[in-house]
This record gives sequence, structure tokens and C-alpha cells, in this order.
Amino acid sequence: MAKKVAIIGGGSSGLCAIKACLQEGLEPICFERTGDIGGLWRFEEHPEEGRASIYRSVIINTSKEMMCFSDFPIPEDFPNYMHNSKIMEYFRMYAQHFDLLRHIRFRTSVCRVSKRPDFAATGQWDVVTESEGKQEAAVFDGVLVCTGHHTEAHLPLSTFPGIEKFKGCYLHSRDYKDARDFTDKRVVVIGIGNSGSDLAVEISQTAKQVFLSTRRGAWILNRVGDQGYPIDIVFTTRMKTFLKKLLSVSMVSSFTEKQLNMRFDHSHYGLKPKVFDQHPTINDDLPNRIISGRVLVKPNVQEFTETSAIFEDGTREDIDAVVFATGYSFSFPFLEGCVKVVENQIPLYKFMFPPGLEKPTLAFIGLIQPLGAIMPISELQCRWATRVFKGLNKLPPRHDMEADIKQKREGGGWFGRRHTIQVDYIPYMDELACQVGVKPNLLTLFLTDPKLALEVAFGPCTPYQYRLQGPGKWVGAREAILTQQQRIIKPLQTRRVEKQASGPAMPLFFKLVGAMAILAIIFAYL
Amino acid sequence: MAKKVAIIGGGSSGLCAIKACLQEGLEPICFERTGDIGGLWRFEEHPEEGRASIYRSVIINTSKEMMCFSDFPIPEDFPNYMHNSKIMEYFRMYAQHFDLLRHIRFRTSVCRVSKRPDFAATGQWDVVTESEGKQEAAVFDGVLVCTGHHTEAHLPLSTFPGIEKFKGCYLHSRDYKDARDFTDKRVVVIGIGNSGSDLAVEISQTAKQVFLSTRRGAWILNRVGDQGYPIDIVFTTRMKTFLKKLLSVSMVSSFTEKQLNMRFDHSHYGLKPKVFDQHPTINDDLPNRIISGRVLVKPNVQEFTETSAIFEDGTREDIDAVVFATGYSFSFPFLEGCVKVVENQIPLYKFMFPPGLEKPTLAFIGLIQPLGAIMPISELQCRWATRVFKGLNKLPPRHDMEADIKQKREGGGWFGRRHTIQVDYIPYMDELACQVGVKPNLLTLFLTDPKLALEVAFGPCTPYQYRLQGPGKWVGAREAILTQQQRIIKPLQTRRVEKQASGPAMPLFFKLVGAMAILAIIFAYL
Repeated sequence: MAKKVAIIGGGSSGLCAIKACLQEGLEPICFERTGDIGGLWRFEEHPEEGRASIYRSVIINTSKEMMCFSDFPIPEDFPNYMHNSKIMEYFRMYAQHFDLLRHIRFRTSVCRVSKRPDFAATGQWDVVTESEGKQEAAVFDGVLVCTGHHTEAHLPLSTFPGIEKFKGCYLHSRDYKDARDFTDKRVVVIGIGNSGSDLAVEISQTAKQVFLSTRRGAWILNRVGDQGYPIDIVFTTRMKTFLKKLLSVSMVSSFTEKQLNMRFDHSHYGLKPKVFDQHPTINDDLPNRIISGRVLVKPNVQEFTETSAIFEDGTREDIDAVVFATGYSFSFPFLEGCVKVVENQIPLYKFMFPPGLEKPTLAFIGLIQPLGAIMPISELQCRWATRVFKGLNKLPPRHDMEADIKQKREGGGWFGRRHTIQVDYIPYMDELACQVGVKPNLLTLFLTDPKLALEVAFGPCTPYQYRLQGPGKWVGAREAILTQQQRIIKPLQTRRVEKQASGPAMPLFFKLVGAMAILAIIFAYL
Repeated sequence: MAKKVAIIGGGSSGLCAIKACLQEGLEPICFERTGDIGGLWRFEEHPEEGRASIYRSVIINTSKEMMCFSDFPIPEDFPNYMHNSKIMEYFRMYAQHFDLLRHIRFRTSVCRVSKRPDFAATGQWDVVTESEGKQEAAVFDGVLVCTGHHTEAHLPLSTFPGIEKFKGCYLHSRDYKDARDFTDKRVVVIGIGNSGSDLAVEISQTAKQVFLSTRRGAWILNRVGDQGYPIDIVFTTRMKTFLKKLLSVSMVSSFTEKQLNMRFDHSHYGLKPKVFDQHPTINDDLPNRIISGRVLVKPNVQEFTETSAIFEDGTREDIDAVVFATGYSFSFPFLEGCVKVVENQIPLYKFMFPPGLEKPTLAFIGLIQPLGAIMPISELQCRWATRVFKGLNKLPPRHDMEADIKQKREGGGWFGRRHTIQVDYIPYMDELACQVGVKPNLLTLFLTDPKLALEVAFGPCTPYQYRLQGPGKWVGAREAILTQQQRIIKPLQTRRVEKQASGPAMPLFFKLVGAMAILAIIFAYL
């Protein structure tokens, strides 16, 4: 009999979890609290408790070729950066194509997940769910926690003295839906993450004045990268990852800082973070709003009064409203007694497996903040987890896993609320891929299929690369990789112009460096 | 007795016209149809007939150091690109500082301007005005037409077959005030000038889908230029103008195209114009809206049906609304019989003086579409015109003026609705400055004040440069030039960061080229 896997949550991670279970011959049952798929990508007019909530205009900040599931490319006429409604359209296509919906129990919450008495031998779990007020219990052989890390709105009011006296309105970014409420108001947005900067820009279109308050500053990236290619397409290549490895940290950061400052000088704009290693914020319009004075960057708020904010530099501004874009906390109340979250931190092997369990039959999916798309990571995590559940892959002994966690934590790679983890996309994906056995072999590729190898090494590291070989190999992967440039350009070409420029031109110098790098990569693989 | 000058219009050109008259000891009377100054920069909820009208969110696309009046720098804490409300604030400060308001007759229209019977001898004009229903006539020694070229909304419905059948709503951009009306609609914006692209971006924030229809395409510039400096600060320098002169047209256009395509490839984005010499559009957000599919670029509309638009490439889209961002026509009904506008063209010497008048006592101010700020041009035009009125400067014989007009027209420098004139900012300003005698003498400067000379030659060509010497010299000009960088940075620095980068770094190569160029400029002046 097939092993039964409980999947908690029907967002993007939940969907690919179902798919991965089916692929491995497991029997998935996905419990989704709401009545629909999509998780945080589904826009709802009214935010629900314990669920992240997006605002109407949200556009994803990873491009379609980088964020898609690895065996289901996003249609070529879809835009590179999708509005939340388009993302939902894609998720529905994916669910339909792989017939995932019939494995989901909608409007069903998971109340409790606990080890069976014979867990040490069987690795089985008791899962108690509730639907329409009725509780139900069932036994599962594995559990995939796909609830994400945008669970509870994090509203640190206690660190803002005087907020209780403030007579204007304040809210968490999750409760923001529309800029209209702020027309002609003076608004402070607290936090310069993706939400904070998005909201500052959007509110500044109708507000009298917006102040964007940040403790640390941020590096700002534009969705539109060099020559108009999506920025993640430009910087997420194996070639760049390889070059980065060759150089020292200070060389990389000095070079990257220069690049980032070419667009606008982060010092001049009051945004430069103290440390280079700050998780960057993706925002297209922020520099434009700052240079036109519609958004003024401010330091942290020291104190609120009835009608104003006093900042740490002593300046004081009259304000009508405060938006706390202070992020989310994650929690797993259903797992109580099993896994402990302390200060938004949870020790997990490769950010997935609790190292202390007698059997590796529980995994967290998508509990990570990468510089890149989260969907393909979730998908690869699911592919690994299901194989671990089946016993096809083994985890190392507890001691080794704990050592690995400790090392990652000390290297700054620890998951905290403030993006203290910055998993580099390619290294982390390759790490997972090695476990599953699907990391593309560049040497073999160069020898057998040089055209494909060139695109794999120099082109964007798209998810299809992890479907070229090994378990879960997809016959369409090669074609998907060779046509990815086409799918990037296609949606832009809605008006014909006489002469089309072809792909990004590569100066001779880079071609030479590139040729050398290919050789180096090949040797590294030998 | 001082000569009396009628100034028609109290917008930015009218204000500096009053100031120039006062400076030259003339007696200005400014007739302003509405009850306030500011012209098109004054936002009004309801557009008035025969007056351009801006929408609520308009931000100017020239930066403060380039757009200010030459002896009245914009306060250092004002943003580099000002919202229309800030521009009005500046105009009011200017009017108050130079005590201009008492020379303005508000709510007074000019009905007719006609030559006096003895015009050939006196150059005098009969000016008939109307206020509160009462007409009044007066004699003037000179007339400055400061009504601008945004007079009548140009709505070429006849070139769009089927528009009369279209059941949705359509409007001219001048009647657009707010994006709310377009929430969840499918909207076509026609025209990719500054208004068209601004509206496409703004409407796309709430609309279901926006189509931006353009016959010709456009080069798109971002307000934020290299390293975050305002783009006009970066490209409007004497050094660059000088280098441009040295190179062939094709070299300049090929270099500039490359620069423009570095941000995003205009071919990929369906925007590349057929000719390089297309007046560029300034828009910060358009590429971002295109890459996210919120704005789709389309060719010209061939035909409208009841519910859709059919484009010239045969594609058809269902639409709910059409915005014609098709610009404005200018007209001077009060000048009938005196000056003829044919197809939005009017032959003027240096875009100011009708060559056929017996006496040069009529000038048009600001009737030009520069690639740069219009205010300092208007101001310098006024300084010249007032000196011509006084007889201090002479115009060449009619025949020479007509030859000059013809030459400019054939060189592409003819004023038409579609920006067929592209007066380069610095050459045109220098041309005017030579007339007035206020063009800065670089050779003398380098010998007497090299610090200033460096900023004049390599820094942005700010209006203060035309106050360093000659008639209207301003003692504050030198200081204003030497502190301009400071006024650019200051409003951005609302949050202190630890280490400030200093000004844009100049690689050694450019320093060498620069040194050679200085020598060359000096020799050119000898």
C-alpha cells in the first residue's frame, strides 16, 4: 500500500508537494484551511487571521522563467513579471494539468500533528483536522509542512514608544489594500523590505507626503535589468556563481556595490546599508519617488506623539497614518511539543528536516528566504523529501545534521525574521539537487550536447535544469531551456519594430573569459 | 516715459517677462485670463476651455537646477524633480521676491492685438482686453505673447474611423484627472509623448489592461540618470555638446542608441522609433509596466468598433475607454490678421520674431519644444526681446531673418505639433545669449577663475551661467554655480548614512580627454 503523506497548506508549496508525492507513488492528502488554492498569492479583499495577505496591485519580483515549476513552463505570452491574478492563473493551470485538486481537502484546518506511540519504529504521525466544526483523526506516514513563513503579522508595537498615544491610524502592511485611504495624508511607512518600499511608492501617488523609515537601509534592485532583461535572468547564472566563488568576498561586494550604485548612489539617496550582506529589496520606482521628493527616506522612529513621529536623528514630522511593514513571523501551533520555534528561529537540516526525530518523516517546505524565486526551491525540496520518506535517500546521523545547521548559522545563514538567511539560489538548489541526484552534469553536457551546455552554463539557471537527468527527468526540459530566451522576449513584442536586436551582445573580452571559465568548470567537475 | 509692454499670459513665461521688463526699465502690464499665476502648472480640478490642464500627480521632467530662473535658484531642500504643487510654490516665491504680482491684471482676457495706424513709424499696438464683461483698449509699445503652445487640445478624431460608433468613453488627456475612473477597465492610450506614457503608467495601476498605441515609437529616458543624478544634469553639459559637435551624426546616434538600450532594449520592448531623431519621452516606470504586462505596446489604431480597437497589425482588443494623448495645438486668435498659424506652424526668427513686421515690437515667448527646461529659455528670450524693444539690440533685415528661418526648417528645426523641432538646449541658449551679450566667455573664465570655469565647462549648463556677465549680470551667479551640486544632493539626504560617496567619479581616461577638450574649447574661442 502506498505511503500516505499529509500536506499542510495548498499554496504554491502545497501544490508541488502533491505533485511530488504523486510522482513518487505516495498518496498525498493536502489540507487547505481556505476554500481555494494559491496561498498568499490569492488576493482577498479582507485579510484572514493567520494568513498573509497581499494588496491588489502586487506584482511578483521574480521573473517567469525563474519562478516556474520545473516541468511546466509558464506560457510564452504571459508577462515576465506577473501580476498576482496571472500567478493564480498559472497555479490553476498547473493544478489542472497534473490533476492536483482532487487531493486537496478545502476548508480543513490541521489542529494537531503528533508522533504515534510507535513513531521510533514506524515514523508515523497522528494528524487531527477540523472541517465544518467536526474533528477527524488519521494516521500518516509522512508530513510536509507547506504553510510558509508569512503566517502571523509581526507588529512590534512595544519597540515604538508613544504609539498608544498616537491619534492617527496605524496598521500592518497585511491590512493594506488600497492607496485611496491615504489620499492627501502624511504617512510613515516603517520598514524597507519589499512590502515597505512597495507601499511607500504606491501610497506616495496620492498621499501628501510619505516618509519611509528604515533602521538599516537597503540595496535596491530594479526588476528591469541590463538591456531590459529581467534582473534575475541576468544575475542568476552558473557562470556568475562560478566567478563569485573565484573572488574574495570583499572583491565581490565592492564590484556589486559599484554596479548597484551605477543606477543610483545609495549613499546620496540615504539608503546605503551598513553591511553589504543586507537582503536586497526589489523596487522599480523607489529612486524616482525619492528624487521627486514624494518619498523621503528617514531613520528609525524613536517615538510617536499624538500627532507626529520623532525620528532617531531628532527630526519630527506631523503624520496622519503609520504603516508597519515589519514582516511576518512563522509558527506551527499544530506541531506543539514536536518542533520548537524560538524567536522566529527553528533549527532544520538544509532548512527542511528537524534533526532530532527518530525517523525523517516530517519536512518543512519553502521555509526559506532566498534571493530568487521560492517556487522552484519548494518543488525541489518536495522532490527530495518524498524520496527521503520513501527511504530512497538517507539523511546523515543527527550529530552531522546538527553540525551542518551550526555551521550554516555561524556563516550568517540562519533563518530569522530579518532575512538573516540569504541562501544563494544556485548553490542551495545544487545542494538539494545533489541529494536527489538531478544536478546537471556540465562535463557530460559539453561533450554530448554543447548547445545545451552553453545555455546551462551561461544562460539563466532556470528550474528546467533540474529535470535534465535523474529521478523525475522530464523529456521537455532540454527544449524548455533552449526556448527560454524566446519566452522572455515574446510577451514584450506586442508591436513590431523594423530591426530586432538579437540577445544581449557579449563583448570579446567576456567571450574569452567565458571560454576559460568553461574549461575551469569542466575541470572542477572532474 | 517708459515704454509700455503688454504681456499676454501669467504662466512661467509671463512671470519672467514681467521681470525682464522691469529690469530693462520698461513698464509691463500682464493680462492673465484666470485668477491666478502659474499657467499650465496650476492644477485645477476642472479643465478650462483653451487652457492646458494637468492631472493631479504631474511631476515635472526637468530637474530643479536646470529649470529654475537664472537669478533665483530653487531652495536647496526642494526636490530635484518637483510635483506641480512645489512648482507653484516656487513661482509664488519668485513673483513675491521680485514683486511681480502688482503688474498682473487677473481675470482679463486679451481680445485683440492690432497694429496702430502709425505702426511703421512707432511700432505701437492697440490692445483690446476684456474684464468682467467690459472691454478696454490701450496703446502699447511692445507685446510679449506668453500663452505657450498648449492651447487647444488636439483631438484628431477624423483619423480614427469608427470612433463615432465606439460605445465606451473617450477623452483627451487634458480631461484626465485621476486613474480611479478606469479601475478594472481595458483602456487604450493613444500617443507615447510624455502625457501618453505618464497616463498609460498611471492608469495601469488600477485598470484591468492598458494598451499604449503608438505610430512611431519613442526613446524613453528615465528622470534618474547615471549614479542617481537627474538625467538632464548628466547630459546637459558644455563638454558633451562640444564632443557631439566633433562627431558625425551617425556616430552620435549610434552611441546614444547604445546608451539608451543599456537600460532596456527598445526593439525588444516594441518601442524603437524608425528615426533616431525622435523627440524622447521621459518616463521612469514605463519599462517596468511593460515587462509586467500591465501596459502592452501596440501600433496605431486603424479602426474602432462599438466595443473594440483594431490595430494596424490586424490585432483586435476589446476596450472600455480611449485616452487621446495627442497633444495640443497653438493658436493666437487675438492676433488675427497679423500673424498666421498654418497647420500648427508659424514662421518666427529664432522662434520669437515674425520677420515681416516693420518694427520688431512683438515677440513670442516659450513657443518652442526643447529637449530640456523651457523656463530658462523663456527667460532668456524675454531678456533679448526687451532689449530689442528698447532698440539696444537690432534684428537683421527681413531677408536674412527669412533665410535663417528657412535654413532651420530644412534642418529639421521647424516647429510642428509633433516635436519636429528639437532645439538643443545649449546651442539655442547660447544663440540667444550671444544676442544679449551674456554668453559666458570660457577663455577668460579659465584664466581668471579656473574653479568656476571647470564647473561651467564640465558641470551641468545651468541657467546661472547666463548671469555671469553682460546685461542683467547677477552677483550671486558664481556662488549659485559653485553650490549647484550641493543643492542637487541636499534634498536626498534625509537619512544620514555612514560614508558619503563624493560626486560622480571621473575615470582617468575622461580626465585626459577633458583636459584636451578644455584646450580645444579655448582655441575655439580664440
